[in-house]
Amino acid sequence: MIFKLEATDGRSRSGSIQTENRTIDTPVFMPVGTQGSVKSLDPNDLIELNAQIILGNTYHLYLRPGVDLIKDFGGLGKFMGWDGPILTDSGGFQGFSLGRLMKTDQDGIEFTSHIDGSRHLFTPEKVVDYQESLGSDIVMPLDWCVELPNDLETLKLAVERTTLWAKRSLNAKSNKNYALFGIVQGGTEKSLRELSAKQITEIGFDGYAIGGLSVGETKSKMYDIASFTADCLPDDKPRYLMGVGAPEDLFESVAVGIDMFDCVLPTRVARNGSLFTSKGRINIVGKRFRTMNEPIEADCDCYTCTNFTASYLSHLFRAKELLSYRLASIHNLHFITNLMSNMRAAIQLGEFNDYKNRFLNQYSLTDESIRIDQKQKWLEMKNEHFS
Amino acid sequence: MIFKLEATDGRSRSGSIQTENRTIDTPVFMPVGTQGSVKSLDPNDLIELNAQIILGNTYHLYLRPGVDLIKDFGGLGKFMGWDGPILTDSGGFQGFSLGRLMKTDQDGIEFTSHIDGSRHLFTPEKVVDYQESLGSDIVMPLDWCVELPNDLETLKLAVERTTLWAKRSLNAKSNKNYALFGIVQGGTEKSLRELSAKQITEIGFDGYAIGGLSVGETKSKMYDIASFTADCLPDDKPRYLMGVGAPEDLFESVAVGIDMFDCVLPTRVARNGSLFTSKGRINIVGKRFRTMNEPIEADCDCYTCTNFTASYLSHLFRAKELLSYRLASIHNLHFITNLMSNMRAAIQLGEFNDYKNRFLNQYSLTDESIRIDQKQKWLEMKNEHFS
Repeated sequence: MIFKLEATDGRSRSGSIQTENRTIDTPVFMPVGTQGSVKSLDPNDLIELNAQIILGNTYHLYLRPGVDLIKDFGGLGKFMGWDGPILTDSGGFQGFSLGRLMKTDQDGIEFTSHIDGSRHLFTPEKVVDYQESLGSDIVMPLDWCVELPNDLETLKLAVERTTLWAKRSLNAKSNKNYALFGIVQGGTEKSLRELSAKQITEIGFDGYAIGGLSVGETKSKMYDIASFTADCLPDDKPRYLMGVGAPEDLFESVAVGIDMFDCVLPTRVARNGSLFTSKGRINIVGKRFRTMNEPIEADCDCYTCTNFTASYLSHLFRAKELLSYRLASIHNLHFITNLMSNMRAAIQLGEFNDYKNRFLNQYSLTDESIRIDQKQKWLEMKNEHFS
Repeated sequence: MIFKLEATDGRSRSGSIQTENRTIDTPVFMPVGTQGSVKSLDPNDLIELNAQIILGNTYHLYLRPGVDLIKDFGGLGKFMGWDGPILTDSGGFQGFSLGRLMKTDQDGIEFTSHIDGSRHLFTPEKVVDYQESLGSDIVMPLDWCVELPNDLETLKLAVERTTLWAKRSLNAKSNKNYALFGIVQGGTEKSLRELSAKQITEIGFDGYAIGGLSVGETKSKMYDIASFTADCLPDDKPRYLMGVGAPEDLFESVAVGIDMFDCVLPTRVARNGSLFTSKGRINIVGKRFRTMNEPIEADCDCYTCTNFTASYLSHLFRAKELLSYRLASIHNLHFITNLMSNMRAAIQLGEFNDYKNRFLNQYSLTDESIRIDQKQKWLEMKNEHFS
């Protein structure tokens, strides 16, 4: 994997990541295909909306259909019909976020399956092996993610273990042609972030991820820590902020030199009828859209907006029609991939800050009550449309 | 609307229906787009799988989003982005099948909404008007459908009222450029079928539908009555068997001179993972498909089979991934539209009977236990994915 830094504008950067058979333009947003499909979308949809790389979840794929089966099929890309690059996570975050964690010690993470309650131990070595089986282009090592806020002792232990596991992951890497990233932990403690970044970069990886954010802290705290941590990372490797994908967060993070992002937010809120527009997120089942004979966003060139009115989308959501999920997911992902490509162009023109201000000035942030409502809807749907 | 009979082979017929701006090749299967979308599919999918005409349900569209709204948007085709022909039903069958019927007398059908319990009266005149608002190419008059078996008195009354309503429907027709069909009732009583066909054809319509079948009678009874009724209808108008769509039923019905069909079966069973193959319906979550590194049907050229293995589909269904519904629906509808086009070609070559025998010899009929299981699954999903 070769990373080329092509332009900078303040701290923001544009560049490219050369994987075995594809070039990824950065900054880049990676749609999440948890269980071998970006929910409701097919590979053609992903190509059409300019997805350059997608993310797969090792935890989910390990449990179902199993990494050995996917290996037999020639890897995750072949299995799901996607021939672009794939990044897979380590499964550590799912153990944490799904509340399935049974035990963690310096050996690894033990969790119970959300499918059948069976117990599984993920060690750094196994996790690298699983991702090799999945045929990932970018492999993430097992790290230890803790919720925020948290006590200093726990945060210290998370850093210590993450470093130990990072070394073991690198040792476990075969000479297959993929990239292995390092992950920086440390919660909201800058001294720990600095320490973690130092330890991880000293080991040396193909890229560096900032983990353990977007797990309960405020947005301003998240921005502050992402900014601080980005500065502790070398310029010549890609920087990946894990689990971040709201438009305002992408702007703030690109502004401090982050290159890569992933998040279920655009597709998850899409399935609840929450759609991105340049003025903020709208709720498509709201009364004003019922009769609106125009696309959701007048100048959007996604498949959804070029073919369907807000009224039709509103009807599909009210009627709980399956097509609603796909059309909304296409729009939201297109909105984000388009945003990233505009940011990249703005960086190259030295106009990133102007573009950021212009966007954020007209974009109303989703207020907390809507966020909570969306989260609630997601929890209700969770059993059915997992993740 | 102009119907041309182009070839016959025994009693089977191939022809064409010329609507205002499109020619439909018969025999034809019409996918059902109950609420303004063929479940999980977009208009491009429909074009790709060779759907020539789709069906919309007046009952559902009247309740939500409302026929006036659709009229304001230029009709159902414009509203949903489908620019091919559309047939709409009268809503009478839904009043019957959804158990929402409150009252029926010679004036019309009163039912309660499945959405909010509100009461609505459908008269023959209103129903024609609603379908004009929807911009249908083929309008169906309000008829009175009764379950089978049923007593002679009820069957007689159904015929009488259907004839009365047919006359009122024709009187209500404006001079807009669409076709109005007549519907023959009479249950399983041949004398009543004959009487109904005589009365309806004397009034005179652009085409004739056989209603009141596939509502509880055995398959052999259904074939017998369809065959008998087809013979009571004029040769020079299209004949439409309502609510029929299983492969074996399509063969038996085309064999006796039926030209048009609609049914939710191909898409409904698809959403339950039941997929058509030349050997019969398979259950994709069955164990043998988990590791099958081939498409469901080797020589199928649908999008699903040309891009995905049975194993991947099986995984999507096990994981309840939204993409599963669309990929399975594409395959099943393609299977049926392809079947119809093969039948048409066979009729033109005078080889319909050979083709029918060849197909049915290798096609295992779905046995009753699987049918009941599928029905149960559908009932469970019904609240969510209505119809």
